[in-house]
Amino acid sequence: MTRNLPVNPARIAEDISDLAAITEPDHPWTRRSFTPMFLAGRDYLVRRFEAAGLETRIDAAGNLIGRLRGRDPGRGTIMVGSHSDTVPDGGRFDGIAGVSAALEVARTLADQGITLEHDLEVIDFLAEEVSAFGLSCIGSRGLAGQLNAAMLAREADGRDLAAAIREVGGRPGVDEGRKDIKAFLELHIEQGTVLQDAREDIGVVTAIAGITRIEIIVEGRADHAGTTRMGHRLDALAAAARLVLGIEAIATEKSHGPTHFAATVGEFEIEPNAANVVPSRARLLIDARAEARPDMETFIAEVRTLAATVAAETRVTIETPAVISDNPPTPGDPALLDILDKASDEVGARHRRMASGAGHDTAWMARITKSAMIFIPCLDGRSHAPEEFAETDDIAMGAAVLLEAVKRLDKVLE
Amino acid sequence: MTRNLPVNPARIAEDISDLAAITEPDHPWTRRSFTPMFLAGRDYLVRRFEAAGLETRIDAAGNLIGRLRGRDPGRGTIMVGSHSDTVPDGGRFDGIAGVSAALEVARTLADQGITLEHDLEVIDFLAEEVSAFGLSCIGSRGLAGQLNAAMLAREADGRDLAAAIREVGGRPGVDEGRKDIKAFLELHIEQGTVLQDAREDIGVVTAIAGITRIEIIVEGRADHAGTTRMGHRLDALAAAARLVLGIEAIATEKSHGPTHFAATVGEFEIEPNAANVVPSRARLLIDARAEARPDMETFIAEVRTLAATVAAETRVTIETPAVISDNPPTPGDPALLDILDKASDEVGARHRRMASGAGHDTAWMARITKSAMIFIPCLDGRSHAPEEFAETDDIAMGAAVLLEAVKRLDKVLE
Repeated sequence: MTRNLPVNPARIAEDISDLAAITEPDHPWTRRSFTPMFLAGRDYLVRRFEAAGLETRIDAAGNLIGRLRGRDPGRGTIMVGSHSDTVPDGGRFDGIAGVSAALEVARTLADQGITLEHDLEVIDFLAEEVSAFGLSCIGSRGLAGQLNAAMLAREADGRDLAAAIREVGGRPGVDEGRKDIKAFLELHIEQGTVLQDAREDIGVVTAIAGITRIEIIVEGRADHAGTTRMGHRLDALAAAARLVLGIEAIATEKSHGPTHFAATVGEFEIEPNAANVVPSRARLLIDARAEARPDMETFIAEVRTLAATVAAETRVTIETPAVISDNPPTPGDPALLDILDKASDEVGARHRRMASGAGHDTAWMARITKSAMIFIPCLDGRSHAPEEFAETDDIAMGAAVLLEAVKRLDKVLE
Repeated sequence: MTRNLPVNPARIAEDISDLAAITEPDHPWTRRSFTPMFLAGRDYLVRRFEAAGLETRIDAAGNLIGRLRGRDPGRGTIMVGSHSDTVPDGGRFDGIAGVSAALEVARTLADQGITLEHDLEVIDFLAEEVSAFGLSCIGSRGLAGQLNAAMLAREADGRDLAAAIREVGGRPGVDEGRKDIKAFLELHIEQGTVLQDAREDIGVVTAIAGITRIEIIVEGRADHAGTTRMGHRLDALAAAARLVLGIEAIATEKSHGPTHFAATVGEFEIEPNAANVVPSRARLLIDARAEARPDMETFIAEVRTLAATVAAETRVTIETPAVISDNPPTPGDPALLDILDKASDEVGARHRRMASGAGHDTAWMARITKSAMIFIPCLDGRSHAPEEFAETDDIAMGAAVLLEAVKRLDKVLE
């Protein structure tokens, strides 16, 4: 489909194909944070930022920032952007589409000869994906003042995170104390099929789901697989299988409600994991996501009841399921959501409000400024995989919505 | 309980406590085959064999053999014994009780001034437990001419199995061509609770269960745990959990039949095993044991039907479950079983016929001679664990049954 948009899809397509070419050759599309390949991608982005007339710098947290100066420096900054790092064998669009769309907003303003009242900053956050340091959203946490000493002391590949941030040009531990950011917007691929199924262009994100991780340990008894009669076993795997199916049933029931809910047993191991021994131990790690906090609270309670029921039925020992991390949902700023709806209408985008099941840098930016994000469709919801795909025209439509929203924000922000 | 037995329980207790003291100090009770600790145990056994008047040697397959010469060398050999190696952190009785009981038979014959017509050989088989070479029953396979070149070429700890057998004094590749063994008997702890529950002394083993290993691969799809709606997933773990419970149900139903049946999913892994990714792949390895071959054949068929059903219900892909090893049951020799029943009656042992769920050296000996085994009780069926325990009096009762059976065999074997 060809749309009559103020932005230039060809420039977006070029950003994305040029960045895709900067990949570990045997693992497309891989540009892991803190690697030489990542720095090569950053070098490319610096050239693209500078070609667009942006003043570029690396901030204390290692984020790449390009600034388009506004008419009144005292008015503060409107920030737009996302991240350019990928997961291993990851995609060409997750994060990258948002960086390119933000850059296209700046390029289009320059093309149109528009000078905003506010400074506009385009940002490529450092290390949004979980890196070797076992932490996500390093750059946005840092910008929001949420990178603590314990995080900076984490070690990987022979140095700590602080040293790794210095390697990319940051100055970890320096609190920029940025009070000047008045609003933050991020475009991202949906990583789901809601927009594709509804044939819509834009998801205005009502909330980034809370993420809770729950660990369950099942203790059975290691018995000889040949000699121990079926009724005389304390089989940790058989008990854990009941938990997996119970968790699936609880999550499926909650997913039928009006707000987003999903839960996954993503990590699962047994011991001793030997062919001729009845499993003595199983460990499950649940990843649960809830747009509405009450759903998460009832989920935790129901999983605890499930564990007690399975333990009673199977005679294994199951400790009370342990909540090992628990981040509440992050709602989008209501005023920004209205502006994004209006901007979508203005550019002719079919839009809906929806939740984000995934975490994003926006959740950290929301701690320091008004924040919101939009989704654009991606093919079959595939993400974090080589086949991840989004149409250039769909990214361009999102960039046009961002552009319109930035123009509106520039007028209404005090 | 004190019983009036022809054998000497104190000598059995001494064998077992002395061997238990020869253990990796931090991992009682560990005496792994092919290690210095194993050779120290062998040195002890050689001294005990020689003190009993046995002519000792290491045979081509690395078995330790002590011979008590009979009156007529042309009549052939009656062999009794088991193994002295252990699993890691394994027990003091698995195998060892059988070696000690066999030795006690020879000691008691000498005490009583009895010379058999046949030679009597007491054997400590090499490496009954799965060793670093990934193979069980190395000594009994070798003695039965079943150690092939591929097995001898297996490598572990920097040398092949042939070299490891040479290290313990064997001459691998030399076929002893033993045609002189007329019967083989083994005493072993039950490793189950049938005798304990029934308060019986002796299990006369009708058959060593067949062991079949079946691998199932489940292929789902790796999706984002946060964004992929519950109904839109191809979760390999959720499908595999249905398989685990289905296998448990089939095995439990078969275990209610008149013959021994058990099945265990002992190995179970998922990929990518990452907290925020819907599992894309699961691998299950089933260990199934059947005293009656038809049970195993229907089990394999029912598991294949189960896999097809689960695949259809969950939309994941499940290849036809693959039988990766398949050993049929080994029945005990009927004439020997009768002799063992009569010997039990003779010494006043309460006995029953029962199957062995575990594999034993006897299964390999049965390929070359009339073979049978007896079980004695062990505490709560615990085995392959530090707490494995059998009463000295129970082992002595078994040794008395062996002694009586050997005397009867000496008369009836042609």
